[in-house]
Amino acid sequence: MIRINENFNALQGSYLFYETGKRVKEFQQKNPDIRVIKLGIGDVTEPLSPSIIAGLKEAVSEMGVRETFQGYPPYEGYEFLRNIICETDFRARGINISPGEIFVSTGAKEDTANIQELFSGDIKLAITDPVYPVYVDSNIMAGRNKIEYLPCNAESNFLPGLPSEDADLIYLCFPNNPTGQAIDRAGLKKWVDYARQKKAVILFDAAYESYIREEGIPHSIYEIDGAEEVAIEFRSLSKAAGFTGTRCSYTVIPDKLMAPDKSGVRHSLNKLWLRRQSTKSNGVAYIIQKGAYGYFTEKGRLENMKIVDYYLENASIIGRGIAALGLNYCGGVNSPYIWCSVPEGLNSWQFFDELLSRCNIAGTPGSGFGSCGEGYFRLTGFGKRQDINEAVERLVKFK
Amino acid sequence: MIRINENFNALQGSYLFYETGKRVKEFQQKNPDIRVIKLGIGDVTEPLSPSIIAGLKEAVSEMGVRETFQGYPPYEGYEFLRNIICETDFRARGINISPGEIFVSTGAKEDTANIQELFSGDIKLAITDPVYPVYVDSNIMAGRNKIEYLPCNAESNFLPGLPSEDADLIYLCFPNNPTGQAIDRAGLKKWVDYARQKKAVILFDAAYESYIREEGIPHSIYEIDGAEEVAIEFRSLSKAAGFTGTRCSYTVIPDKLMAPDKSGVRHSLNKLWLRRQSTKSNGVAYIIQKGAYGYFTEKGRLENMKIVDYYLENASIIGRGIAALGLNYCGGVNSPYIWCSVPEGLNSWQFFDELLSRCNIAGTPGSGFGSCGEGYFRLTGFGKRQDINEAVERLVKFK
Repeated sequence: MIRINENFNALQGSYLFYETGKRVKEFQQKNPDIRVIKLGIGDVTEPLSPSIIAGLKEAVSEMGVRETFQGYPPYEGYEFLRNIICETDFRARGINISPGEIFVSTGAKEDTANIQELFSGDIKLAITDPVYPVYVDSNIMAGRNKIEYLPCNAESNFLPGLPSEDADLIYLCFPNNPTGQAIDRAGLKKWVDYARQKKAVILFDAAYESYIREEGIPHSIYEIDGAEEVAIEFRSLSKAAGFTGTRCSYTVIPDKLMAPDKSGVRHSLNKLWLRRQSTKSNGVAYIIQKGAYGYFTEKGRLENMKIVDYYLENASIIGRGIAALGLNYCGGVNSPYIWCSVPEGLNSWQFFDELLSRCNIAGTPGSGFGSCGEGYFRLTGFGKRQDINEAVERLVKFK
Repeated sequence: MIRINENFNALQGSYLFYETGKRVKEFQQKNPDIRVIKLGIGDVTEPLSPSIIAGLKEAVSEMGVRETFQGYPPYEGYEFLRNIICETDFRARGINISPGEIFVSTGAKEDTANIQELFSGDIKLAITDPVYPVYVDSNIMAGRNKIEYLPCNAESNFLPGLPSEDADLIYLCFPNNPTGQAIDRAGLKKWVDYARQKKAVILFDAAYESYIREEGIPHSIYEIDGAEEVAIEFRSLSKAAGFTGTRCSYTVIPDKLMAPDKSGVRHSLNKLWLRRQSTKSNGVAYIIQKGAYGYFTEKGRLENMKIVDYYLENASIIGRGIAALGLNYCGGVNSPYIWCSVPEGLNSWQFFDELLSRCNIAGTPGSGFGSCGEGYFRLTGFGKRQDINEAVERLVKFK
């Protein structure tokens, strides 16, 4: 008789953003005349920039003609895309990453969820709390339960301390989702040194790299000496290039990154990931990769830098609105996220419901990101300026 | 200390089509003046049809304008696409499947690889041999090793017999990859009845459904009474609509399909898959789904029916060429694949190498699909007619 994967029973009923989405939808169905301003899921709102559209259009035309039609893409991504990624995101910053170390995929969510498949079932995990739920849920689904949560709260300046027990696999995300906190070079070096000492692997989620505006904040973990021996880095075009609905990202697995099996034989994680990807996927659509290429051109980067600046200014406006309510917050600098404390007497989900019904603003309850997120709330800087301004005006109802 | 997933050690060194691709590439690098005709990987060659291109173009334009820009897609796929899938592939055939039972994804490869995550680690699998390698490899990676292989060879008319031990999860693919063999209604009913009796689940890969031309061959497993209680069906646009490089497919999980956990509590596999998909992916690009919609329109279906007819005629030409060599084959009817026996004195990989060096034709060695594939070889009907004719002419070198 068939039986289900029991580990699903250990998960919460539904994925966080599925739940918040459902509550907002229900509210809107009951209140069709009310316009809810969505500052919850962190979805971009500006259209794709001209360079990206040009790449997409060209690719669509090519797909309609026999001579330029493209079939199965390479599992690792087209060379034209891996080359320009390498140049713009790494070599231009003096970081020595080669195209063979880059794997293009449909999303950093997919990659951060799937990467755990490369590792043994009984390793010890270190995961920050609050955290993007995918890291935890993907491991719970796979049956891993040795998880040390590293609290990130006001006392620790929203940065995690080193694990108390030796960790084997460490999830870090900077600039952080959900707290918006960035990490400086010294702070990140501490983690790379720890991983080297403990023979651990760091999974570094840099999906918000393009929001970094301050000096001294590393754009890549490979800016830190020795990181290429201990770290995998995830990058995404979702928030950098407006690709939430277009789906493209990439993952860096350096050739120097090795890990042993039980017999002590060391394996290249780059080769292991290629085996995983070539077995379980057929790569990313040609059209999408051509659009992504448009983003990485000089013109495309400039266009999108301006869009990111727009979202950063939105976040900053929300931050001022939050501060005016007398609530503390972090983020909004080097990040599109505002992570604020909720008003006294309410928990995160209560604030979610109150904010939805009283101000008609959808946010994300901090406790959805982990137990240390209780008492906090995430708002995003995505949206039209007009809506952001209106949201801040509506917030005064909480005074 | 980090350790890798030991199960990767139980896999062959590389994914089959990665290996054949590498050998062809090496041959071409050594022989730059020789034009290799590729009848191996089963990649389509005709451009996307006008209705699909129109959908893609419209979507690209929409993505460049704020008012019509699309962010994160629904995890299950856009309603506009799920509705038209339902109408054209099911309701028009009198099959009662609703849009809520359909999950759009980036590929049937991805879905057939990922679906095993829903099930317990210690279930017993029944998998045909030869077989599309993804079914086996994805389970080996997950640590499952209770696999009964069901031989499909000339003696069994390339159809599998029922398992000798009770199976919990059964992989079936019809029309079959690699053998090209189709199954009739009575043959498929035998499997549905078996699954109902044993409380097993059938994973029915119908990626080649659009190649069915003969009467009496079911287009969907849900044509069989009771299948909605025991079967998941996978469909793909790769071979039906030329989407190998555009990436779109869908999976049907009926609401009536339930499976117990160890405590006997029954779970909806539809809900479990939604939890899996919403946790580990962010759906399929809007642009791609609009292109897929173009395929499902009446005009799009007609355009692509003609393209599939073209590939079927190619396969038929190859079949005649193979027969002229005195080799037996099946497939080429209801399928783009020709599954032929290799000349005496050669094994499958030797024939691969010989065919590549002597005729400059790339195929796929049967043994790459499983031990019962030894002595066989797969050729595909994809390609330009001119190349197919030339390939058949080159084949006489084997006389």
